[in-house]
Amino acid sequence: MKRPLVFIAGTVLILAASMLPGADARQSVANHSRRDSKIVAAIRAVLDAQVAAWNRGDIEGFMEGYWRSPETVFVSGDTITHGWQTVLDRYRKGYSTREKMGTLAFSDLDIKLISKDAALATGRWQLQRAQDTPHGRFTLIFRKTKEGWRIVHDHTSSG
Amino acid sequence: MKRPLVFIAGTVLILAASMLPGADARQSVANHSRRDSKIVAAIRAVLDAQVAAWNRGDIEGFMEGYWRSPETVFVSGDTITHGWQTVLDRYRKGYSTREKMGTLAFSDLDIKLISKDAALATGRWQLQRAQDTPHGRFTLIFRKTKEGWRIVHDHTSSG
Repeated sequence: MKRPLVFIAGTVLILAASMLPGADARQSVANHSRRDSKIVAAIRAVLDAQVAAWNRGDIEGFMEGYWRSPETVFVSGDTITHGWQTVLDRYRKGYSTREKMGTLAFSDLDIKLISKDAALATGRWQLQRAQDTPHGRFTLIFRKTKEGWRIVHDHTSSG
Repeated sequence: MKRPLVFIAGTVLILAASMLPGADARQSVANHSRRDSKIVAAIRAVLDAQVAAWNRGDIEGFMEGYWRSPETVFVSGDTITHGWQTVLDRYRKGYSTREKMGTLAFSDLDIKLISKDAALATGRWQLQRAQDTPHGRFTLIFRKTKEGWRIVHDHTSSG
């Protein structure tokens, strides 16, 4: 019977808060977290779309998640690659067949806002393939662009 | 004789700009980039201090560069570690002797501001040791804290 108690405590807290001065500030915090949830959902949608594109063999579609700019950065192992086009070429070369692409899954996603137009996403990636199951972690910096939230910096490592 | 020409062109541009309206906006841009250079220098100083600490065998000193918080994140390979203390313990375990620590060097440093209190630093790391020379890349998220600019998120990979 712990849930009702927590519920009551929560209600009391909200009532108490609404009787205190500074309602505008609290409204601002509420709007802020509503905006934040929307951003987190938008970023999650970009990542979901990337996974869906990858798993239908669509590397260009996967690349839609990245900022289409020569400034986009991709770090992996001891290699740094600059530019959307270069990253696309790299993917096309490294994953030239459907078998090499395998089935991609992201997990343990954590999305944190850095500012109103920047966010940090971390998570696990895994490729299920006939011969192996490569996996690791990624750190992504998202920026809000004209096209929506896009990855401007990707650091991926494998385990 | 290209330098004098560029110098003259630059002077003309400054003179022309100072005759146009919007001097306040330009002053603001100038202040902005002066502030940015100061931030980049402050972050570079944190990284320099980390390298100096490491190379005198001072892991605690090295750890000064990180935000002293349970929220600090360290990603490497397929492992994610949360918390300043846990990262310190990990370093102490992994680099228990001066020989294992070797001599650290950072290179190819690139520091970009994300917002007025957040920045992204990328670079190469290398450990010179008697038996081997491990090396790789890092992506660091810095935040401005009460103690100064500190790493809140570190993704390190090796090549």
